[in-house]
Amino acid sequence: MDRITASAPVATAEFIAAMGQNVSPVCVITTAHEGSRTGLTATAVSSLCADPPRLLVCVNRSGASHAMITASGRFCVNVLAEEQGQIARLFAGMSGKDADRFAAGEWHRLVTGAPALAGATAAFDCELAATVDQFSHTIFIGEVVAVTTSQNRDPLLYGARRFRTLRKVVTTPEHAPLENLHF
Amino acid sequence: MDRITASAPVATAEFIAAMGQNVSPVCVITTAHEGSRTGLTATAVSSLCADPPRLLVCVNRSGASHAMITASGRFCVNVLAEEQGQIARLFAGMSGKDADRFAAGEWHRLVTGAPALAGATAAFDCELAATVDQFSHTIFIGEVVAVTTSQNRDPLLYGARRFRTLRKVVTTPEHAPLENLHF
Repeated sequence: MDRITASAPVATAEFIAAMGQNVSPVCVITTAHEGSRTGLTATAVSSLCADPPRLLVCVNRSGASHAMITASGRFCVNVLAEEQGQIARLFAGMSGKDADRFAAGEWHRLVTGAPALAGATAAFDCELAATVDQFSHTIFIGEVVAVTTSQNRDPLLYGARRFRTLRKVVTTPEHAPLENLHF
Repeated sequence: MDRITASAPVATAEFIAAMGQNVSPVCVITTAHEGSRTGLTATAVSSLCADPPRLLVCVNRSGASHAMITASGRFCVNVLAEEQGQIARLFAGMSGKDADRFAAGEWHRLVTGAPALAGATAAFDCELAATVDQFSHTIFIGEVVAVTTSQNRDPLLYGARRFRTLRKVVTTPEHAPLENLHF
């Protein structure tokens, strides 16, 4: 390993401000256990590997969802569609601590029993495969046992403390070249 | 733990198709070691925790970047701006295996020596703090030791095999309410 300049990490506020420059799809992570269900709005979600199909979510250890995912061993990652901002706000606790987070939207069970949202851009139903604790958060690694998708729905995005949406792909000559960029 | 319906994971192709419904910011992950530098285009990036400031990237174990990040213990996550599509293509290997991936753009060193891209929406210079192997990929957890940001630049996005861009935030009455949604 090369010599690395010893340095303190950047200040938390500086890190948060820089992360705010980014945008991320808005996801609702749900779980169910012993007749209860809960969930949270999250953007710290990433695909991990495709064979076997695994993804990860980073969840704060202090929340109710963390405890229930740990207990149930199951969770569903619902990638919200543009028109599902109300659901993002409910699961972010913006309608009050005691609000029924499942009051809006139509919820189904796929394989594990964790709630999957109808009309989501995509939903990934996962069995908990591994956990990695990192300070305030845990990385939950899920093995995907069921998926649903809604074709032609763009995801809702979030960055710099506001929701954002995608510019629509249109097929005018100006935009057509975008169609050919694959990797 | 509740009883979980035993089930095989979904097929890899099905997982990839569902992930394609999502969009993600396009990042270039760089590293430097013993006078060499390399990097790759990646979308599997997530914030992890804020205190200490940590993020993670998922990198295929078969690539040159994986070996060099492991050896050097450093990497920089560059969140590309909308106009940096050429750099995304270079680091995705679309200009040929032997192309100089650093031929476009202006590259700097921050703290660790991993290349940071001028004009990126944000760049996160990281010391490698932990690794988690998961089949074809490794989760590299980085402690952020330096950040740079370019104000008022939206990130380049990628989904369904094409680049996407954000709809611009405008302050007409129709869009103004978006400004007030914080969580």
